Amino acid sequence: MAAGTPLLKDELDIVIPTIRNLDFLEMWRPFFQPYHLIIVQDGDPSKIIKVPEGFDYELYNRNDINKILGPKASCISFKDSACRCFGYMVSKKKYIFTIDDDCFVAKDPSGKDINALEQHIKNLLSPSTPYFFNTLYDPYAEGADFVRGYPFSLREGVPTAVSHGLWLNIPDYDAPTQLVKPSERNTRYVNAVLTIPKGTLFPMCGMNLAFDRELIGPAMYFGLMGDGQPIGRYDDMWAGWCTKVICDHLGLGIKTGLPYIWHSKASNPFVNLKKEYKGIFWQEEIIPFFQSATLPKDCTTVQKCYIELSKQVKEKLTNVDPYFTKLADAMVTWIEAWDELNPAKDSAKLPNGSA
Amino acid sequence: MAAGTPLLKDELDIVIPTIRNLDFLEMWRPFFQPYHLIIVQDGDPSKIIKVPEGFDYELYNRNDINKILGPKASCISFKDSACRCFGYMVSKKKYIFTIDDDCFVAKDPSGKDINALEQHIKNLLSPSTPYFFNTLYDPYAEGADFVRGYPFSLREGVPTAVSHGLWLNIPDYDAPTQLVKPSERNTRYVNAVLTIPKGTLFPMCGMNLAFDRELIGPAMYFGLMGDGQPIGRYDDMWAGWCTKVICDHLGLGIKTGLPYIWHSKASNPFVNLKKEYKGIFWQEEIIPFFQSATLPKDCTTVQKCYIELSKQVKEKLTNVDPYFTKLADAMVTWIEAWDELNPAKDSAKLPNGSA
Repeated sequence: MAAGTPLLKDELDIVIPTIRNLDFLEMWRPFFQPYHLIIVQDGDPSKIIKVPEGFDYELYNRNDINKILGPKASCISFKDSACRCFGYMVSKKKYIFTIDDDCFVAKDPSGKDINALEQHIKNLLSPSTPYFFNTLYDPYAEGADFVRGYPFSLREGVPTAVSHGLWLNIPDYDAPTQLVKPSERNTRYVNAVLTIPKGTLFPMCGMNLAFDRELIGPAMYFGLMGDGQPIGRYDDMWAGWCTKVICDHLGLGIKTGLPYIWHSKASNPFVNLKKEYKGIFWQEEIIPFFQSATLPKDCTTVQKCYIELSKQVKEKLTNVDPYFTKLADAMVTWIEAWDELNPAKDSAKLPNGSA
Repeated sequence: MAAGTPLLKDELDIVIPTIRNLDFLEMWRPFFQPYHLIIVQDGDPSKIIKVPEGFDYELYNRNDINKILGPKASCISFKDSACRCFGYMVSKKKYIFTIDDDCFVAKDPSGKDINALEQHIKNLLSPSTPYFFNTLYDPYAEGADFVRGYPFSLREGVPTAVSHGLWLNIPDYDAPTQLVKPSERNTRYVNAVLTIPKGTLFPMCGMNLAFDRELIGPAMYFGLMGDGQPIGRYDDMWAGWCTKVICDHLGLGIKTGLPYIWHSKASNPFVNLKKEYKGIFWQEEIIPFFQSATLPKDCTTVQKCYIELSKQVKEKLTNVDPYFTKLADAMVTWIEAWDELNPAKDSAKLPNGSA
């Protein structure tokens, strides 16, 4: 590809949730400056967030979110980076890349700066292979292919909806693991991209993530976290579980692996434990729920799938905690808000009845 | 681990199928010499296979196989490296490593010789995680762990039955891919080991493979290939599909990734095409068959699972080609021969009736 033309320049927004000045963008300037940024300001809306010169951006604080969504703003988390999903909703582009403001440019083993965004775009623009495992990893990568024994009928792959990138330096550990291994750093650069197989769930991290809004956007709801909620740090996990079930149902692919970013600082494990501890119990029931969730055939759009999933959440997870009733309702509100801001061209209306 | 003590020295056999002198062992001497070799000589039994000095080995040619198995020798392929599985059967050890005689010691990116056997042993001795995907790959590797969102109840993992290693230089491509990309070489060293998730099939290559005989040995039948058979080069694939279905059923794990070996020379794509072409059609039906195969609860041993699978093969694949009736019968013969050579200490007798 031509070095001079950034890929998908006018088709991708970069979504950044933040509570501070965005100095971290300086390091990303060579890679991000051609793109439009959507900054979602969390916390005190009166605080001024400084964005380095020369970036093209729009910024939304809580007042903006309330103004735009009205009562439906209740589905957007406050005082939690889960608020980033508001940025997915207001974007008008086909692709989203989202990154945390404590993530910097990593280097590959040769010492070269990694253009994370470019790798995500490559991942999204090439197919996924969820139905059979290729032992040489991404068969579409340069110098690779499908190995002997890979069915030819599956070699076209399926459209890729999500590209999940990884982190050098501070790994994305939960609070208990952080407490047990405070000084563990990820130094292993694994030069691979692979498709998460159909039927397999994974822990999707929101730190370094890209997706195709048109294919899967409405499933990328980061839930109710933070202020007034009994849980935090499960926003991206929730989105990942819902997204994986829906991608499996709709025949879409999710890739993980490259690109790496440099995650600079570990969050406080004591604070994290407080946010996470209910999730640590709950995930033991949530994951079997998602593992066995099935969607009916008439769920042919992401919205229909998501509404159906919200019903199943309410029905089957409310006995875990009443929080899940609230979350299920917020899932419906999210879809209503999404459809309001993104009027469907040809996709079906939301179903009012049950499936 | 102590450098002086080779891991599992008295608990592992190295199985090598061959038609030529085993000069390739010279390069492996530092790593293989402490272990016992089982050499399965394919083709003309009157030919003398030279083994370099200093290796401890037993060698079986076709006459030996016929003598040991009698009429049951019909289940062991002739003029095809599928004959290697005879070595699995006569071994008395807990672990098997099998390698092709055109595979040499590869170097890691730092230029160090890779002790493939040691890495396989590490893979086999640490658990697998088939029920949920860990985005930082093997959570038991040094410097790695389970990431945030990984259920704690699944962190013990399950016993690892198979370790599938990869190949630098000549990739394991089928004949059509070899023909299209004659000069493609695998230069990508991916520093990862990962568990193939439950419910996902993969193309298992027999070139560089280790497994726990006690856990999965009887499923490692390499089928009927070569002389007198309509197909070749699907021996390891067949074993891999059967093994994966049985591992999933019994709660055992299969890992793929490290270690790499150096695969020195591509086999002739025209010869390969002749061997493979029926398989290329058949796999389009075989793979859906294995993807949907389920085993009843009372299949609690590998033998019972395998006999059940042989029935399903006969019932559901014979319409693809009458070959599968012959193969299904050979699967039963294989288990009978296995049990004859490996009298069960406490495992149940073979069922005579159907499940």
